[in-house]
Amino acid sequence: MRLRLKPRDDRFFDLFSVAGTNIATATSLLREFVTVPTEERGELAKKMRAAEHAGDDATHAIVEQLDRSFITPFDREDIYRLAIRLDDVVDYMDAAVDLTTLYNPEALPDNVRLQVEVLDKCAKLTADAMPRLATLRNLTDFWVQINELENEADQIYRRLLQFLFNGSHDPLTVMKLKEIVDQLEFAADAFEHVADVVHSIAVKES
Amino acid sequence: MRLRLKPRDDRFFDLFSVAGTNIATATSLLREFVTVPTEERGELAKKMRAAEHAGDDATHAIVEQLDRSFITPFDREDIYRLAIRLDDVVDYMDAAVDLTTLYNPEALPDNVRLQVEVLDKCAKLTADAMPRLATLRNLTDFWVQINELENEADQIYRRLLQFLFNGSHDPLTVMKLKEIVDQLEFAADAFEHVADVVHSIAVKES
Amino acid sequence: MRLRLKPRDDRFFDLFSVAGTNIATATSLLREFVTVPTEERGELAKKMRAAEHAGDDATHAIVEQLDRSFITPFDREDIYRLAIRLDDVVDYMDAAVDLTTLYNPEALPDNVRLQVEVLDKCAKLTADAMPRLATLRNLTDFWVQINELENEADQIYRRLLQFLFNGSHDPLTVMKLKEIVDQLEFAADAFEHVADVVHSIAVKES
Repeated sequence: MRLRLKPRDDRFFDLFSVAGTNIATATSLLREFVTVPTEERGELAKKMRAAEHAGDDATHAIVEQLDRSFITPFDREDIYRLAIRLDDVVDYMDAAVDLTTLYNPEALPDNVRLQVEVLDKCAKLTADAMPRLATLRNLTDFWVQINELENEADQIYRRLLQFLFNGSHDPLTVMKLKEIVDQLEFAADAFEHVADVVHSIAVKES
Repeated sequence: MRLRLKPRDDRFFDLFSVAGTNIATATSLLREFVTVPTEERGELAKKMRAAEHAGDDATHAIVEQLDRSFITPFDREDIYRLAIRLDDVVDYMDAAVDLTTLYNPEALPDNVRLQVEVLDKCAKLTADAMPRLATLRNLTDFWVQINELENEADQIYRRLLQFLFNGSHDPLTVMKLKEIVDQLEFAADAFEHVADVVHSIAVKES
Repeated sequence: MRLRLKPRDDRFFDLFSVAGTNIATATSLLREFVTVPTEERGELAKKMRAAEHAGDDATHAIVEQLDRSFITPFDREDIYRLAIRLDDVVDYMDAAVDLTTLYNPEALPDNVRLQVEVLDKCAKLTADAMPRLATLRNLTDFWVQINELENEADQIYRRLLQFLFNGSHDPLTVMKLKEIVDQLEFAADAFEHVADVVHSIAVKES
């Protein structure tokens, strides 16, 4: 246990909480997006794009705060890395929505909803965890559960590939649906990378 | 040459050696897996899953040791990062085996064996290198050779794609086989990332 | 603003400038490659391979300089990471060229030229930015513009996928062209990773 020489700077924790809340908002939009009829997708895609911009704004606010801060609660590069990793999550969800809008498939495979359920659990855990960065306490459950959810996402993803490749779809449809499903899998991986950075900060600062 | 103020903690090197040995075990299973008749794949897939769990256990043991250690032989985040990168290698090999079990192709392309030969060489070099982390000496050959093998893996992979795309397979078969071959290529990349972390530690600590 | 205790070591900045200039050279070759008739591709592919080797040499020179240097202008691992990230850019461009040579498609989709135009802008910004590492001043425009260009590259890439998947190409042709287009998208991502490392260094050292 090292002495904590760095004072708390609550603004960083507030900004990370904003980024976490925005991820939860984006995931709610995604949940709705994969269930609504085709003609309602456009409206939700616009909202998702707004969430993606809000994510960019949150990242920029964190980096600007870094520029203004003489001392920081964690190492500067870790704050930077966590901001970038949080941003990645929304980028992948927005990419999934954008590609669905572009390809406009009549229906997404049923199991896409299972993928999104896992992302929703990850988003809630992440939004809940951000305020606990202030003390770095009670975070073990966060990374353990995110890792379990990411394993679950892997299994759902592989079964989705098996479904896509079962011979009942034409190859171009398979390729399009796979692009969408891939982005959702990348979003699950991105949650794991967020958890890894948080874990790495906890390991370093504890 | 900086003064070494950090004492050795042999437990970390023992744990990294366990992770390295587990990678070599997993790669041996993979070698067998890509040569046996289809009906023997199931048994080997179970053993691979066990190796994947053993990899997780090795990673957890390293992170728990970090939590218990007041001082560490390298920077804490580098120990954490190396543990994660070693884990990735087995995850990709397990994914290749899992997808092969799911899709159950009658035969894998011949050159998959060449991919696996390269992974086997990488695994042996990695298992051999882990104990040398204790002194950070005689590691140059490790990352130079891993980089050369990764280049070789790239070439084999691109020729495999050329073979898959030569028009003698139907598109869905190509997509399935490509998913498997991709995971093996990711495993080769993962060995390079391990070597990069080791190189980065050596550069920092020397 | 922390006191700068580390002296400048101009050799690092010279070597990063060499790597940056090499990226600009490789991108010029790529621009030519995607416009020439099929029979002229071979000659340019050889030159690209030479640029890829020159990139490797630049990386090695930076790492050797690290080994020889007692004190460094930035943290050692950041110098190492930046060298690796710069190398990645040329590797992806070389991979795109190599796969095009292997598959030998009669024509690349028109929008590949748009992808390459964006890479060309990224390369010029990167080559221009490297000498400014010496002072870490006037770099904000670099990462802001690279991020904007990477967003532009994403949009071009998604429209390219839409074109490839529009039903006017057979699936194997789509898969081959997608492999090539993917490598160019990875190159755009790699420029963003370079900018992220530079930004991270600026955040840490400022």
